[in-house]
Amino acid sequence: MVVVGGGFGGLFATRFLRRGDVRITLVDRTTHHLFQPLLYQVATGILSVGQIAPPLRGILRKHKNVDVQLAEVTGFDLEERAVVAVRPGGTECAFAYDSLIVAPGSTTSYFGNEELAQHSLPMKTIDDALNLRRRIFAAFELAETAPSEAERRRWLTFAVVGGGPTGCEVAGQIAELAQRTLKEDFRSIDVASAVVLLFDAGKEILGTFGGGLSRKATDGLERMGVEIRTETRVTGIDGDGMDVESPNGRERIATHTVVWAAGVQASPLAGILAEAAGAERDRAGRVVVRPDCTLPDHPEIFVIGDAMTLSGLPGVGGVAVQQGIHVARTIRQRLEGRERGNPFRYRDLGSMATIGRGRAIVSFHRLRFGGLVGFLSWLFVHLALLTGHRNRFGALIAWGWAFLGRSRNQRAFTVESIGGSDIYRGFAPAGVPAFEREAG
Amino acid sequence: MVVVGGGFGGLFATRFLRRGDVRITLVDRTTHHLFQPLLYQVATGILSVGQIAPPLRGILRKHKNVDVQLAEVTGFDLEERAVVAVRPGGTECAFAYDSLIVAPGSTTSYFGNEELAQHSLPMKTIDDALNLRRRIFAAFELAETAPSEAERRRWLTFAVVGGGPTGCEVAGQIAELAQRTLKEDFRSIDVASAVVLLFDAGKEILGTFGGGLSRKATDGLERMGVEIRTETRVTGIDGDGMDVESPNGRERIATHTVVWAAGVQASPLAGILAEAAGAERDRAGRVVVRPDCTLPDHPEIFVIGDAMTLSGLPGVGGVAVQQGIHVARTIRQRLEGRERGNPFRYRDLGSMATIGRGRAIVSFHRLRFGGLVGFLSWLFVHLALLTGHRNRFGALIAWGWAFLGRSRNQRAFTVESIGGSDIYRGFAPAGVPAFEREAG
Repeated sequence: MVVVGGGFGGLFATRFLRRGDVRITLVDRTTHHLFQPLLYQVATGILSVGQIAPPLRGILRKHKNVDVQLAEVTGFDLEERAVVAVRPGGTECAFAYDSLIVAPGSTTSYFGNEELAQHSLPMKTIDDALNLRRRIFAAFELAETAPSEAERRRWLTFAVVGGGPTGCEVAGQIAELAQRTLKEDFRSIDVASAVVLLFDAGKEILGTFGGGLSRKATDGLERMGVEIRTETRVTGIDGDGMDVESPNGRERIATHTVVWAAGVQASPLAGILAEAAGAERDRAGRVVVRPDCTLPDHPEIFVIGDAMTLSGLPGVGGVAVQQGIHVARTIRQRLEGRERGNPFRYRDLGSMATIGRGRAIVSFHRLRFGGLVGFLSWLFVHLALLTGHRNRFGALIAWGWAFLGRSRNQRAFTVESIGGSDIYRGFAPAGVPAFEREAG
Repeated sequence: MVVVGGGFGGLFATRFLRRGDVRITLVDRTTHHLFQPLLYQVATGILSVGQIAPPLRGILRKHKNVDVQLAEVTGFDLEERAVVAVRPGGTECAFAYDSLIVAPGSTTSYFGNEELAQHSLPMKTIDDALNLRRRIFAAFELAETAPSEAERRRWLTFAVVGGGPTGCEVAGQIAELAQRTLKEDFRSIDVASAVVLLFDAGKEILGTFGGGLSRKATDGLERMGVEIRTETRVTGIDGDGMDVESPNGRERIATHTVVWAAGVQASPLAGILAEAAGAERDRAGRVVVRPDCTLPDHPEIFVIGDAMTLSGLPGVGGVAVQQGIHVARTIRQRLEGRERGNPFRYRDLGSMATIGRGRAIVSFHRLRFGGLVGFLSWLFVHLALLTGHRNRFGALIAWGWAFLGRSRNQRAFTVESIGGSDIYRGFAPAGVPAFEREAG
């Protein structure tokens, strides 16, 4: 069988079948699994990339029935039952399957307005997180030497669009950076005067958490210095600022740094697959699957996680994990000739989001709580979910230093890495003799 | 006063003067100090970037008389006593000084044959290390799916040029990766069959260590599977291999991965300064300084570390550190009106290089030792030298896992990051919807 994608869904399906009498080809276009819930900590200098992106080959080393293939899937030949892909270097290849699990996840959505993408910073991949890290720390540097007060304010204003967990967590951590971590690092600017704005089109942030948690999160973030603007839509973003619209009217926000955490859409692979199979998709591009996660007319193909839609399930990692296990179980049952065709049932294990150090909000069944108890629950759950003892231990150390102390270990970035970005234009890359190129 | 460069020399000079009645402007073109001796561990997936590249502002946070400036120095106006620089974005600026310490370090040298640079991988900066990391781990991936046996061998052959500490350490760690870390990770290739070649033009590797240590290092590396080729010069490198010349004749080595650790030359800033001051330089581009590290006719300008030459001092971090402290002391004496004009004296505290896990060679005064005692000395000294308890603790954990176990935490790399490299040409960047671009 073939599994497309080594995210939560694909990885859990693969691991579930490690003892099964089945050969699995896991195809991914990167060599790592990504623990997305902690991506914001990479972006804000707390964790290193390696801590949330363990190599797929390492994770699956002992699963001798699993073959990891680095390739980018480009199509599906449903007649021949083969997945078509491109290898590094551009050569085409194909992987034959009897069963196929498609779990390509989601990408950032700009709701059809691709202009918003050009001057904002998404938060979906490792590269996104590292780019955001550079941009955040560089913004303070550029504020320090800004030629005018207006320009300085622009660098010290951070806008985060989207009041879901990622948006709240990024906004909270940028505020922490300004209020604590970098407080004494600069000489010309007052870092603590930085403004962090959090925008959401809905009536409240973290709306899905319900039960007063939204209020709690708002209070927590506001106490940390985050300004929350609900019922506000972003209508335009350019290099110097953004335009927003709210019941109070239109407004222009002067900023160089806009984080886009407002929405996701299914991976383009969902579209390719749907077209090949004649399946339907919803507005977010997700494939409509049957209750057992198979494609209509194609019981051998399963679509799971962020790439599918099924009776209003939320687009969270928990769904992907449970679907991965569910479809793996179905495949094993088929192999054993005792398939029961059980529909997928999601057990909502709750959701959580950190607000700042020592504070998180948690919704677990009918329980709703926050504060330190919330934070300790968050800590416990995330340590349990991280892959490998090494990463658990490393993350615990990093959190101790960052949350009890105020040191962040992963602030390094290089000028060369920001080469493509406007903000460093004309600046000579590090590591290349400067005077072989034109300065300025 | 102004300090150019936040490496070992500049940083130690700045820290020494933290209690002095002097305002210091530290100018660097990156925001971090780099602990170069451990760069090879970043390249081979043991340490994260943040662990060896702490932010200069963080280190100097409490030194209220120090102002860190992110800018690339482009010239010196000795008449006006000002350092001319370019800020991110390209605007020019100048820093006036009464005393000036120039400590820009060195860059990779190809001994005048810049063609060698094009297809080899240097090891001087963070970007170099991250690029090498990607190339090493990608090489195994590309071997796994190579279309022919010849191509597979080419990906599984790693050539390291230069038998100094960095070359030996990189070669040793690539061998460890193949023999231990990645041993069970692949299905099609026998990772352990990878060939690691170490080339040196001299009669032996680590020649400067003397006293049988060179022999010890050779034995240790050979036992780990590294093939050592001494008295061998590299005459050409292209994308498919390299040409070498030895007393045995000429040879062609088929490989895609050539690490260049063969030589360094002074930063181009040394040339700019020497020209402005009418000072002499040696063949490696280093400024010839007076015994107290000042420029002839310019007692207010000090050049230290890899950018200067003085009575045959070696180009090692220890010289930079001690010179930094020496010239800072001279400056303080001048301020106190009791300058003694003492010449710089280098106290050789020895040198060390790791060979593999649990093995290092150490030369300390007249002592020469290796093995586990050497490794423990190496461990102790490097923990002491790393900046900050956080990094010491993190490194210790990483070493425990890597050397006692066999897990390396920092193997993640992204396809996008390799965008510029030939080896992934045509492969779609991660994080960008694949089907908006042409595949292949």
